[in-house]
Amino acid sequence: MKNRENISKLKIIPLGGLEQIGLNITAIEYEDTIVVIDCGLAFPEDDMLGIDMVIPDVTYLKENIDKVKGFVITHGHEDHIGALPYVLKDINVPVYATKLTIALIETKLKEHNLTKQVKRKVVKYGQSINMGQLRVEFIKTNHSIADAAALAIYSPAGIIMHTGDFKVDYTPVFGDSIDLQRFAEIGKKGVLALMCDSTNAERLGFTNSEKTVGKTFDSIFADHKNTRIFVATFASNIDRVQQIIDSAYKYGRKVVVEGRSMVNVIQTASEIGYISIPEGTLIDIEQLKNYPDEKTVIITTGSQGETMAALSRMASNIHKKVTIKPGDTVIFSSSPIPGNEKAISKVINELSMNGADVIFQDTHVSGHACQEEIKLIYSLVQPKYAIPVHGEYKHLKAQANLVKGLGIPKENIFILTSGDVLELDEESAKVTGEVHAGAIFVDGLGVGDVGNIVLRDRQHLAEDGILIVALTLEKGTSRLVAGPDIVSRGFVYVRESDELMEEAHIVVEDALMDILDRNITDWGKMKNTMKDALSSYVWKKTKRRPMILPIIMEVS
Amino acid sequence: MKNRENISKLKIIPLGGLEQIGLNITAIEYEDTIVVIDCGLAFPEDDMLGIDMVIPDVTYLKENIDKVKGFVITHGHEDHIGALPYVLKDINVPVYATKLTIALIETKLKEHNLTKQVKRKVVKYGQSINMGQLRVEFIKTNHSIADAAALAIYSPAGIIMHTGDFKVDYTPVFGDSIDLQRFAEIGKKGVLALMCDSTNAERLGFTNSEKTVGKTFDSIFADHKNTRIFVATFASNIDRVQQIIDSAYKYGRKVVVEGRSMVNVIQTASEIGYISIPEGTLIDIEQLKNYPDEKTVIITTGSQGETMAALSRMASNIHKKVTIKPGDTVIFSSSPIPGNEKAISKVINELSMNGADVIFQDTHVSGHACQEEIKLIYSLVQPKYAIPVHGEYKHLKAQANLVKGLGIPKENIFILTSGDVLELDEESAKVTGEVHAGAIFVDGLGVGDVGNIVLRDRQHLAEDGILIVALTLEKGTSRLVAGPDIVSRGFVYVRESDELMEEAHIVVEDALMDILDRNITDWGKMKNTMKDALSSYVWKKTKRRPMILPIIMEVS
Repeated sequence: MKNRENISKLKIIPLGGLEQIGLNITAIEYEDTIVVIDCGLAFPEDDMLGIDMVIPDVTYLKENIDKVKGFVITHGHEDHIGALPYVLKDINVPVYATKLTIALIETKLKEHNLTKQVKRKVVKYGQSINMGQLRVEFIKTNHSIADAAALAIYSPAGIIMHTGDFKVDYTPVFGDSIDLQRFAEIGKKGVLALMCDSTNAERLGFTNSEKTVGKTFDSIFADHKNTRIFVATFASNIDRVQQIIDSAYKYGRKVVVEGRSMVNVIQTASEIGYISIPEGTLIDIEQLKNYPDEKTVIITTGSQGETMAALSRMASNIHKKVTIKPGDTVIFSSSPIPGNEKAISKVINELSMNGADVIFQDTHVSGHACQEEIKLIYSLVQPKYAIPVHGEYKHLKAQANLVKGLGIPKENIFILTSGDVLELDEESAKVTGEVHAGAIFVDGLGVGDVGNIVLRDRQHLAEDGILIVALTLEKGTSRLVAGPDIVSRGFVYVRESDELMEEAHIVVEDALMDILDRNITDWGKMKNTMKDALSSYVWKKTKRRPMILPIIMEVS
Repeated sequence: MKNRENISKLKIIPLGGLEQIGLNITAIEYEDTIVVIDCGLAFPEDDMLGIDMVIPDVTYLKENIDKVKGFVITHGHEDHIGALPYVLKDINVPVYATKLTIALIETKLKEHNLTKQVKRKVVKYGQSINMGQLRVEFIKTNHSIADAAALAIYSPAGIIMHTGDFKVDYTPVFGDSIDLQRFAEIGKKGVLALMCDSTNAERLGFTNSEKTVGKTFDSIFADHKNTRIFVATFASNIDRVQQIIDSAYKYGRKVVVEGRSMVNVIQTASEIGYISIPEGTLIDIEQLKNYPDEKTVIITTGSQGETMAALSRMASNIHKKVTIKPGDTVIFSSSPIPGNEKAISKVINELSMNGADVIFQDTHVSGHACQEEIKLIYSLVQPKYAIPVHGEYKHLKAQANLVKGLGIPKENIFILTSGDVLELDEESAKVTGEVHAGAIFVDGLGVGDVGNIVLRDRQHLAEDGILIVALTLEKGTSRLVAGPDIVSRGFVYVRESDELMEEAHIVVEDALMDILDRNITDWGKMKNTMKDALSSYVWKKTKRRPMILPIIMEVS
């Protein structure tokens, strides 16, 4: 045991987060030990053209690789595990998580051929892992995926609790209710800081139990005994799928699961006994035609209107095996993730045009804690410092306001942005510095090769297209021997704008002749002169600013 | 008076609509007479890259120009008047509307230098306009803009009623309540078809009166006596602005109006006496600094998170004259138009980061009728045929379902798509054909010069960028005298991918040499060979498909 004076401060360093929602990754550092909580990916914003996903920049971990003892993962959602395969390639340390979470991580490692290299360990609730000078305990919580955990991180400087994404479900579909007793017990010992889920911090009251959705399913199934039923939901919400299967079984329907990600998750969940499907209930999509419509249920992905998901393909009549028919009942068992509203509307309109009856009342509950649950956790844990996590700034702010109302002084509440180094102990807490952190774009196989310059170019191209001016000069004399040719893409449909392109050609030629006449042979100047002339002509005529790209070649 | 047997059928032909929400324009045709209801523009969908707005294709009207007697406009929102300046250039016929609507149209005509050519006439409620064989009566309604009108169109084949966008407001802020008596009176005569606003047909109950928002303003002003107040709302909602000004005056605050479109609308409304501002209440933004914060209100555009609107610029600290400060109160007096949710969240987050307190509870009411109001109108009008209008397919469908519940038989309800020709009279109604209709893209000054090919190119460029392969051949011999040079934009950041580009160069050169060695001189083949080789190399290495554009030049 160290003397009080010798105890170092603990550091909390979010390496992703606020700027890029979904990039959940936080380093907890004490002297020579770093433990990393979660390793999520984010989906691209609208202006990140062509980007497939965003992962965290872990330069800080690479630079301190000797300190990093492992990843502790709170649950198996993409925004908490998605970047692991990318990050583990550089930071090959053990991964600790509960059973389902490890199983989902394993699927990812398999896809990236990393199963052999990466050590991982299934942790049980209540179990603690010693990681250098830190010890991490996994605590049972509830969420929209099974096996979610909160973490208690014990250090000589004090205890940090991290809720992960959570809700309080007194009647969960699978497994136990959140271990409120343990929250209280650790709280009683004295918790330095609580990092608590803020996603629903703007919402009053209490999030309903997952079981309430099951009741709605039962009543919808009872009301629609003569039609085929589709249910679209999140692939990873195993308890939801369980309840759909339960209702289907009760009403004598066969179940088809459609959509690759959902099939995968259900298989994983079945293998470890997290979902129970009565024998003979699940049928293959090919068998659908052997049953009357009113004896079938199709559980599908696409509840967010994702263009390539099964439901969207069915709605727009391009799904190979299932067509929506008048009379079909389609249940959206989901709520829109912000930004997806319009895509979802599009799918609903298409389903509706095909004659389907679309239902979305009381068919979903959130996986996140509302205000009363957040207050409950704070009351049990009674931390010295509050660090709202998970959510947009407005959500973190809402939790901060809530927490102030519980009596935690304003100066003990910290809204951190990525890279912030919060140093804390019993005496004080303060952001003392900043480390390199941020987002890296993944586009196809390329990780980080698309940066802001490329994105700016893509935006420019997307907005107004490109005009290419190509010409060939004679080496030495700079005599024009071919071109200038103008080629356009994404600018105007050329056959309808021949005059415009002809005039543009004259403008470029004039500019070029002028500069050649003046014996200017600097290619940079030549290019700029043509660019300026063409650009101002095009702006005058069209009020558009296509990218203009001069290419000069040389022959001897 | 014609004999019953000689009466022709009436035609209803939507020329925009469902496929492009906002493109409100419908031709009502009887023998040699066409009257056009509204002429709106739509804002581009996410995949319409670089497009500024979408206007209707009025080929059908051009082809029947001799029949077209005029436009009758229901109200002054962009999705009902926005395309007029474009369409009137080809279809120069008189425009009829109420006072404010005409005033707003005049502003548009001025911008397009059309004030002299275009005839327009202010119509009063209750007044009828004779237009060929049709007669159009304007009827008072309520909406989120003053001077909204429903239309009764009288023809020998029967009466059509069109509600325009409407709600029932028994206590409007300005002017009278909707003329329910007249709806009933015309209904009593016998109405052939009712075209009724469906926007809120999914919502139960009754839309609240505009006045309820005024009460909320009063209570927010009372609760925030010590802070500056911002209110973001729709530029065209004059009654809303009136109520903000009333609250400001009551609490002794000066008012600044910021945002070009809002300044314009308020000026127009003031000129015709549709808004009353107590003297000395309105101040210029430059004078803001002369008043203490708690004595000012800033009414602003940007309630939809539009990047260039005043509020967004204030939130992201790039507004030249106003900076958001801790303690500021910002009221969103609006609800998100579908698709804008994420942009609005971004602004709220930014405001919140700057320390502002953001309020959006009970600060807005819709301008559209909910289910009880729709049922009321149907009960007063009792039409033979129902034609739900305005809204997405799911909204039209919701109204259709509602109307079925009122006893109108299914076969008398029509959901029309653009170009449909619905022929109807007392005996029957049927879609008998289709005319050319659709959407035209406006990009800068170009109207219709960006079509699907250009858009597809823009999408391709946006996704993965472009690789240009340029080379020069000797005329006659086809000897390679310059290049191939490869230039990329929006593909990868080249300095970080030098190896990739070097290898790509070798791949192209090999493909080219091979084809030249085989004495193939066809440029098409040459281009395709290089394209294929480069494309498959790039896909293998990056899993991306940039546009590949070979350019061949020739010297003699």
